[in-house]
Amino acid sequence: TLDCPSLFALDPLDAARISALIDGFDRADDFSRMPQAPLGLNVADLRIAVPAPGQRRFYGSQSYEASFSRVIDQWRSLGATIVEVDFSPFIEAALLLYEGPWVTERWLTAEPLLQQSAESLLPVTREIIASGAQPSAADAFRAQYRLAALQKQAAAVFDNVDLLLTPSAGRHFRISDIEQQPIQHNSELGYYTNFMNLLDLSAVAVPAGFTETGLPFGITLTAPAFADESLLAIAQRWLQRIDQPIGACGYRLADTPLLPVPGRIEVAVCGAHLSGMPLNHQLTSRGGWLSLATHSAPCYRLYALPGGPPFRPGMVRDEAGAAIEVEVWSIPEQYFGSFVAAIPAPLGIGKVELTDGRWVTGFICEGQGIDGAEDITAFGGWRSYMSRKMMSQGAITEAKPLHQAPVDR
Amino acid sequence: TLDCPSLFALDPLDAARISALIDGFDRADDFSRMPQAPLGLNVADLRIAVPAPGQRRFYGSQSYEASFSRVIDQWRSLGATIVEVDFSPFIEAALLLYEGPWVTERWLTAEPLLQQSAESLLPVTREIIASGAQPSAADAFRAQYRLAALQKQAAAVFDNVDLLLTPSAGRHFRISDIEQQPIQHNSELGYYTNFMNLLDLSAVAVPAGFTETGLPFGITLTAPAFADESLLAIAQRWLQRIDQPIGACGYRLADTPLLPVPGRIEVAVCGAHLSGMPLNHQLTSRGGWLSLATHSAPCYRLYALPGGPPFRPGMVRDEAGAAIEVEVWSIPEQYFGSFVAAIPAPLGIGKVELTDGRWVTGFICEGQGIDGAEDITAFGGWRSYMSRKMMSQGAITEAKPLHQAPVDR
Repeated sequence: TLDCPSLFALDPLDAARISALIDGFDRADDFSRMPQAPLGLNVADLRIAVPAPGQRRFYGSQSYEASFSRVIDQWRSLGATIVEVDFSPFIEAALLLYEGPWVTERWLTAEPLLQQSAESLLPVTREIIASGAQPSAADAFRAQYRLAALQKQAAAVFDNVDLLLTPSAGRHFRISDIEQQPIQHNSELGYYTNFMNLLDLSAVAVPAGFTETGLPFGITLTAPAFADESLLAIAQRWLQRIDQPIGACGYRLADTPLLPVPGRIEVAVCGAHLSGMPLNHQLTSRGGWLSLATHSAPCYRLYALPGGPPFRPGMVRDEAGAAIEVEVWSIPEQYFGSFVAAIPAPLGIGKVELTDGRWVTGFICEGQGIDGAEDITAFGGWRSYMSRKMMSQGAITEAKPLHQAPVDR
Repeated sequence: TLDCPSLFALDPLDAARISALIDGFDRADDFSRMPQAPLGLNVADLRIAVPAPGQRRFYGSQSYEASFSRVIDQWRSLGATIVEVDFSPFIEAALLLYEGPWVTERWLTAEPLLQQSAESLLPVTREIIASGAQPSAADAFRAQYRLAALQKQAAAVFDNVDLLLTPSAGRHFRISDIEQQPIQHNSELGYYTNFMNLLDLSAVAVPAGFTETGLPFGITLTAPAFADESLLAIAQRWLQRIDQPIGACGYRLADTPLLPVPGRIEVAVCGAHLSGMPLNHQLTSRGGWLSLATHSAPCYRLYALPGGPPFRPGMVRDEAGAAIEVEVWSIPEQYFGSFVAAIPAPLGIGKVELTDGRWVTGFICEGQGIDGAEDITAFGGWRSYMSRKMMSQGAITEAKPLHQAPVDR
């Protein structure tokens, strides 16, 4: 019930390519999951959870502890917001992997081998797996109830952040250390990872420089299931920013083509959907966020359409036009369809050229819709026009523009 | 892990209203599931699975058997396609409910009561629940593996049909029958229902007339999870068609407002997305189906846009225009956004008026896009224009219209 394949690759681009090849629904695999929309994270404005300092474990390695603090500072300097969170649901779930009834699944697989040639297993492995014969179904269901509670607690963490940042391991152990205390050190090595499958998370582990003693340090980026592609895109941007060689051959990622962030659609809005405007909630209630406040290419005319409230403008392509204030909002792909379906004539969703020359999905207006509508191109945007209109109607007494609301996450 | 609430209501409209009130994600419930898009079924062109005749069970009641055959004929006469399927994955899953380790979950709940006052439980209930103390975790995991296989087999059934139609029960038993053989008859009563939660299905049970001996007969409509709203809409249409009183007070559904079928968006296409045209796969690969082949209101002009292949038309609102051939396609809401995002300028998605006066979501075209484009309104539609164009280019030698492909399900 827990197994899933891991990918090992030199860089995130390779991993993304292999992932795209092996990803998909397999009718022949009883535990294969139905395809689901990829989870798009806010790469441009990351909020990153880290375990509260008292819950970090480095098992005596001050150099690993220092490396993790350095990496947190690096992310912060790259613009990420760091949020310290309670790591205990992850810790408790990690313990369930070997102390809970899921060991029984290993016993079910290994039982024939244990019967026929138990000596072919390492004693420590044999000891752990053999314990899987003991639990009762009641133990199994009780553990499932506890896990469900921990899953909800972990989900609540991800409600407030894009991803969880941890060391990939708290330190490195010598082989001789492991031989002396295999179970304890194995558990310590899994402190930041053993919860992954139980909590149904996706994760990408990447290099993050070297400790002051010259040992490799690595970090893991973790998010809910189906965020794999987003995490690879973030990991790639991280490796490009820190720009250190990866692998043994001096390979650098600086020139790798950027992986796209999946699962979201950018839509340019120019009217009642702008931040602070009456229909902006149609974007924020769908998990939308503001990607960019900008202008269209100088090739549009803006018209105040009849009707309302809500009052709406129509933006019409015209090479003799002007640059119009627009906002580009990022919306989860699966919610964009219902947004489009709610748009009344003569408006619609087509393609809009931005001031930087990019064409993005955005509001358009049918030609017939502007018959008799007021040309308000000279205002430069809907916000400015509405502000003037409200002032002239006495709704507000000063020419105070409707201020732009902060990004609603 | 299996429990979910059941709703009892006089008619599907009441059930839908109550469902809308109680539906939603509950952070405080560890087993509450994240909201998911409702599953939209093809109400207008239903494909219905029924158990193969040899797998139907009526426990000696010929009148119930005859009633089920009558109901199948009724659905067929209402236009549904009936498909006989192998019912064995459902049968086997139903047996797991009481013979598998899930009884342990009941034991976990009832254990304090069993300890303190076992005599307060009926002997048969006590006997079944007490057996839940026995299974091992290995039994529990083995049963989960088997259930996962059965879930995949059941899912394969629903790949080919919209819903499963069964009797709600194979017959009615007298209380004295139940008292004599409580476990056997309870299991028989669950033959068509005990698999529901284990296979993660949604179901609606509705009246379906009376047997020839005057006993009430009922049917259950079953589909994958999150089809509840669709099933209620279908159940409502069924009850309206058979138009018999429901409940004890002679209430009839004939005039109840129709429940909408959720989770899908209807989009009017007029060009390269028509059946058999080069971009039609963008609809079928998203699970779209053809709802209606019709025409626009007589208020549009059609233009052949420059560029291509694929060649595309632009349909532009003009009260002095004509009725243009369009097709209305039904697309799952969560896949519509990516469809919209792939549409190039000057085309877009807005609102289109049909010949019957309805406004539906559909293709529009920016005014500037038709500068210099050829007005092909006189052809009455893109199919007719393209057929003529290909003939004139010698691609085909007769005026044979591109035929309309059958609905791709």
